[in-house]
This record gives sequence, structure tokens and C-alpha cells, in this order.
Amino acid sequence: MGWWGKMNIGVDLGGTNIRVAVIDDNGIIIEELGCSTEVWNGPLRAIEKIIAMIQKLQEKHTVQAVGIGAPGPLDAKNGIIIEPPNLPGWQNIELTKTIESAIQMPVYLENDANAAALTEALIGAGKEADSVFYITVSTGVGGGYVYGGKLISGAQGNCGEIGNMIVDPHAIGAPNLNKGALEALASGTAIGRRAESVFGSGHGAKEVFLLAQKGNQEAADIIDEALSYLAIGIANIVHTLNPEVIVLGGGVMKSKDLMLDPLKEKVLPLLYPSLRPHLKVELASLDQKAGVVGAAMVPGQYL
Amino acid sequence: MGWWGKMNIGVDLGGTNIRVAVIDDNGIIIEELGCSTEVWNGPLRAIEKIIAMIQKLQEKHTVQAVGIGAPGPLDAKNGIIIEPPNLPGWQNIELTKTIESAIQMPVYLENDANAAALTEALIGAGKEADSVFYITVSTGVGGGYVYGGKLISGAQGNCGEIGNMIVDPHAIGAPNLNKGALEALASGTAIGRRAESVFGSGHGAKEVFLLAQKGNQEAADIIDEALSYLAIGIANIVHTLNPEVIVLGGGVMKSKDLMLDPLKEKVLPLLYPSLRPHLKVELASLDQKAGVVGAAMVPGQYL
Repeated sequence: MGWWGKMNIGVDLGGTNIRVAVIDDNGIIIEELGCSTEVWNGPLRAIEKIIAMIQKLQEKHTVQAVGIGAPGPLDAKNGIIIEPPNLPGWQNIELTKTIESAIQMPVYLENDANAAALTEALIGAGKEADSVFYITVSTGVGGGYVYGGKLISGAQGNCGEIGNMIVDPHAIGAPNLNKGALEALASGTAIGRRAESVFGSGHGAKEVFLLAQKGNQEAADIIDEALSYLAIGIANIVHTLNPEVIVLGGGVMKSKDLMLDPLKEKVLPLLYPSLRPHLKVELASLDQKAGVVGAAMVPGQYL
Repeated sequence: MGWWGKMNIGVDLGGTNIRVAVIDDNGIIIEELGCSTEVWNGPLRAIEKIIAMIQKLQEKHTVQAVGIGAPGPLDAKNGIIIEPPNLPGWQNIELTKTIESAIQMPVYLENDANAAALTEALIGAGKEADSVFYITVSTGVGGGYVYGGKLISGAQGNCGEIGNMIVDPHAIGAPNLNKGALEALASGTAIGRRAESVFGSGHGAKEVFLLAQKGNQEAADIIDEALSYLAIGIANIVHTLNPEVIVLGGGVMKSKDLMLDPLKEKVLPLLYPSLRPHLKVELASLDQKAGVVGAAMVPGQYL
């Protein structure tokens, strides 16, 4: 492919685990290290572990730059983690500056969903398309837009924060989200919340999918409601950005029969008729490794 | 400025009037011609008039290319007008090909709101910013996104069709629009429709603004409702694209006191706290001529 010519290190900084890998210019993982984030130990300890893993990989491989994918909100331009709900205790952390001074190599920061969007757009389900909007539906809902091979990062790198998009101002909200926000109505967490209210406490999203597959009507209704809201979110994105392909990733979107096909049926009637024949909606093809591979592609966006 | 180096011809093709002008590389109109679109005479007659005006200007000025801004939906890549509500009778018209063969010069087509967005982003209210989302609120609601000096046009050139964005699935729709679409709830037409239902038939949007300025509560409520929906639309755009500036144009947005200031107050609480201090919301500065000037900038996006 040759987006950046040489090998880079990608860092996938999540609330649970940290993955650090050397990635070649075909998006292939050459060597990967990992550890637990241990958020309870605070950001300094985690950053030490990231630096140690990068240094270990630097000793064995000739790499050009480091890209980090991290949960938002963040300030991509200045390399600062602001205050992500998934990384409690990380407040205004100057991540790239700290790591750069330790490893003597340029370090770039990007929103984790944006990094995954890059992977899917350049070597995944959207690789044939010129404009790709990637949506991940798991615990939360996030996304990213890649246009002409370039990530649209936004003024502070918070492009694709579609979890807070309002799709129904009369519906419920959730902590840190707008009333009627997409994430409050269509995420795995939202499905789990509906499961508790219908089937009683202790029941969750996974059970809803199992029950729906067995033909349970209440479970099917919960999924149908989430898909209806997701369809509004997708239609809004399509009218705002007219992407060639929507790529859907994340744990909630795994099932084609249960999720993708009914979702497509709900999206099409909400589009201007002239847009309907053109839009493609696909499942992500590289889901699990999209984060760390995309992180390694971030430096190529600047070079 | 020098986006394209030499002078271009811009064509602003509207439902009522056609404007054709020679524009220099500072966005200054050197000479302008115009005529009525006379939609009842069909597309061929209108295209003949456009060609005649271009040829008249070609005789006097050395120009490099022609850019056309026209109402969507259209196919920008292939230069085809598809079926715009504002140009009845124009169905799948190969506009650029027809004009190119007559004038022997490259011709480019773009959505009219996208063309206006280019003007405001490059030489208007957004000229200091790197990412500008332009919104026009008049008879309809449209928009366009300029990122790093480049128009994000979309797969078929229909980026910015935010009039069909759903902001309240329980609200009313309008012909050719989704139920609860932004244009059905916040456009001049929508305000006029509410005026008729509150004050009786024959009353319109202009009267609502006059009455509200005089302190009429019912008129103020109509405007407040439209602004609340517009605030949802803007918050959705900001979470999707994280632009540095939102620029608001179109007849409905003219009043700073009545419209812009209350709108800003409604938008901020709907944003993630980390985005609030960064977002700028400005009135368009070149409104009337933004269309024809922006059309002349379209070729520079390709060269």
C-alpha cells in the first residue's frame, strides 16, 4: 500500500488494555506487546509501561514514528488527553510530549474511533471507496470519516463523536450524554438498560441477542428500537456527508442477519431518493485489530 | 489569495435567477450578467442563456474555467442535475458536458450551498479557520463543509444536505422531507407554516420576525421553536465533524439579536463540555454574492 513508506509503531490505549505493535506498510502486525491499563494506578504508571513497550520494539525494529489511538475527548493537534470517561483520572495529560521526550521519535495522537476508521477505510471494508464513514457500536457509539484517503480529524480531533448526536429529543439520556443521544438509545449499554427494564435486573445485552435469535418478541422489540435510532443516526450522517460507504464495527454489529440487514431496510426510506441507489452499508472486516493498526497509520496522515 | 491563479467564470443557477460573473483571484466580481431562469421554458432554453452569457464574458476577459453552483440533488462528479425541487422539469440534465462543448473550456458543477460554503470559508466569516461548516437558512436549509481549504463534496456531491437531517422523529414533516427533518421545522417555510396556523392564513415568516421584534409572545415562541430545532441540528453537526467555526447565512439568519445570540445560547448546553470553549458561531459576511463567487472557486478545488 505504502501510505507512509516504512514501519510505524501503533499504540491502542483503551480503558482495559494497552496494545503496542510494529505495523508494516501493508497494515500487517509484525510484533505486538500488551498489558493491562490498570487505570486505578493513574496515567503516569500507564505511560511508563507504554514507553517501556515502545523502547523494547525500537531495539528490534527500524521504525519511523509512533501513532496513538485513545478515547476522546482529546486534543489531537496538541497531543493532550482531556478527560475521557473510559480513562478515569486522566485529565489534561500531555501524552505525546511526554512519550516523545523519552523515545526520541515523533508521536501523534488520534481519537481511537478515528484510528479504526482509517484502518477500515484504507485496508478494510471501505478500501475500494473514496469516502468512508466508520461507525462503531459497542459499549458506546463512535465514528470517524475518511475522505480521499485522509482522516477528517476536526478542529480538536473530535470528529466522529456521533454518540452525542441527538436522534430523539423526547427520549431518555444517559450520564454525560444529551437527552435522546444516539449512544443513550442504540449502544450495547442502552440495549442492556432496556433488557433490565423488560426482563428484570441482572439481564443484559448479550441475553437480548440470544433471546431474539430464538424468536423472543420482547427481545426482538428491544433490538428493533435500537436499530430504528441507529438508522436515524446513519441517515443524518449520510445527509450531512454523503459518504460512499458506511462501515459498521463494534461488538453490537457482529450479526449480519440480526442487525445489518434489518438496519439497511430502516436506513433507505430515510434517505433522499437520489441517494438510495448509491449508498453501501458494510460490516467492518478488521474489527479487533483495527485500533492498533489504525494508530500506526496516524503519522502517515501528517507526513 | 491565489486559490487558482487566474480569473474564472462563476454561474449561480437558481430557481428564479441566473447570475454569471467573471471573478478574480481575490473573489472580486469583475463583471456580472444576469437573467431570469424562466423555469417554465425548460432547461434547454436556460442553458442556451447561460452559454450566451459565458460567451459574452469570454470575448472581453481572459478566463481559465467555469464553475456552476446549482440546487441539489445533483451528481457533481459527472456534472449532472438530477431532479432539484427548485428547478422543476430539470431531470438528469448533463449540464457540464453540454456547456463544455459550446464554450471549449472546462466546466465544473457543485451544489449551490457547497459553493457558498467555499466563499464564506475562504474569504468570508470563516477565513481565519481551518474547518468551517456553513449553514444557510432561507426557504430551505442547506450547508457545506470546508476542511483545510478543500470542499468536502461527498460521493455524489451531496455533502451538506442537512435539510433532511432528522432532529425530532415525533414532529411533522414536509413534502420530499423526512418526518421531523430540520428543514421542515426550522426553515423560513416552516416558520411561515407555523405563522399561518397561529395567526391565520395569509400570514408569513416576515411578519413573525416583525411581530417578535415588537414583543409579541406568540411570534417569539414560533422563532424560539425554530431556533431550538436549529440548535439540535448544529449540535449534531459539531459532534459529527468538530468544525472550528459554524457560519450561518440565508435570509432567516439576518438578525444578530433576534436569531444568532439566542441560537448560540441553545447550542452550547447540547455540546460535550470540552467542545464548548472552542466552537465559534458567526453570521455569514458575503451572503448575497457568496453563490456566484463560490461557483467561480469550484474549478480551483480540482486543479
